[in-house]
Amino acid sequence: MEEQRLEQQMKFVLELDKIKSIVRQTYLANGERKEDDAEHSWHLALMCFTLAEYANEPIDVFRTMKMVLLHDVIEIDAGDTYAYDQAGNDTKRERELAAAERIFPLLPKDQAIEYRNLWDEFEDRKTPEAKFARVLDNAQPILLNDASGGKSWREHSVKKSQIMKRNEKTSEGSKKIWDYLERVIEENIKKGNIIDDM
Amino acid sequence: MEEQRLEQQMKFVLELDKIKSIVRQTYLANGERKEDDAEHSWHLALMCFTLAEYANEPIDVFRTMKMVLLHDVIEIDAGDTYAYDQAGNDTKRERELAAAERIFPLLPKDQAIEYRNLWDEFEDRKTPEAKFARVLDNAQPILLNDASGGKSWREHSVKKSQIMKRNEKTSEGSKKIWDYLERVIEENIKKGNIIDDM
Repeated sequence: MEEQRLEQQMKFVLELDKIKSIVRQTYLANGERKEDDAEHSWHLALMCFTLAEYANEPIDVFRTMKMVLLHDVIEIDAGDTYAYDQAGNDTKRERELAAAERIFPLLPKDQAIEYRNLWDEFEDRKTPEAKFARVLDNAQPILLNDASGGKSWREHSVKKSQIMKRNEKTSEGSKKIWDYLERVIEENIKKGNIIDDM
Repeated sequence: MEEQRLEQQMKFVLELDKIKSIVRQTYLANGERKEDDAEHSWHLALMCFTLAEYANEPIDVFRTMKMVLLHDVIEIDAGDTYAYDQAGNDTKRERELAAAERIFPLLPKDQAIEYRNLWDEFEDRKTPEAKFARVLDNAQPILLNDASGGKSWREHSVKKSQIMKRNEKTSEGSKKIWDYLERVIEENIKKGNIIDDM
């Protein structure tokens, strides 16, 4: 019985190796190549315990870290949907739900339920933990885009209105990090990396 | 004051982006390319909360996760040293200490101390958390090597004696995971992926 449990967990651990092959639209800080979902998730977890003091409400940092480490595993099946791809975002939810139905049940039942609940919590964005996890998920590409000279923003002709719409709830998770990001966004408008359409 | 603190933390977060460019000798499960330190660290953190029940002694999973997420950041300066590179391992400690002296102090002092302590704890391998973190750090490449058909073992003509020496303390962290790994190692000796010299 215990042996079967460990086999299931190891199978899940290996299945999730596939997120290392899901490439995002964000470049590394040095601009050399785009990052993948595993790298992005590692970065969010690091940011989570480094920046937790800036959450608007006290958060369970441990649970938030599990959430960010798992939030993109559904992209193994659903693929990465670029933040500013309207058509892709219209079908995203359906593709991701189907992925969640396949991937989490690879685990023993108790963990399948726990991990699915963590993913649902992230998606629902209602708890302080989920709100803070979303701050990190939105902040990290802004920091990397800024560091790489706006490479991805330029390639996709990203407009200020798009960034503001995507971040309309970011201040709900962390007012202080959002204030910081707003300064970064303004600097990149001045540099011509983001189109000022507002 | 608080603004300066956040600036320091953001600088650290961006500096650590460099571990995405530190390539290890282990191939992804699909064998397509070698993985990097950020991907490896993400994988260890996932394994940490998925497999924590197999630690010999109860562990603080949250602290262990921080440890594995940070354990390789010193490789930004020191580079990755392959487990079975004898010359490299002779100078490894010195290179990694110098890296720790530069990298952790980028943080505000309280966090610089906390993160350095986590890295020292991992290196010292004395607490239940550090012992379990080391189990994960040794187990993950074995699982990936097995999945990729022993690609990295074959390329480096790895011998059973080398793997057993590297893992002589693995059972101190988790008897159950080590039992599992021993079976994987034996299967790969049978397949000719690991040289049987014992």
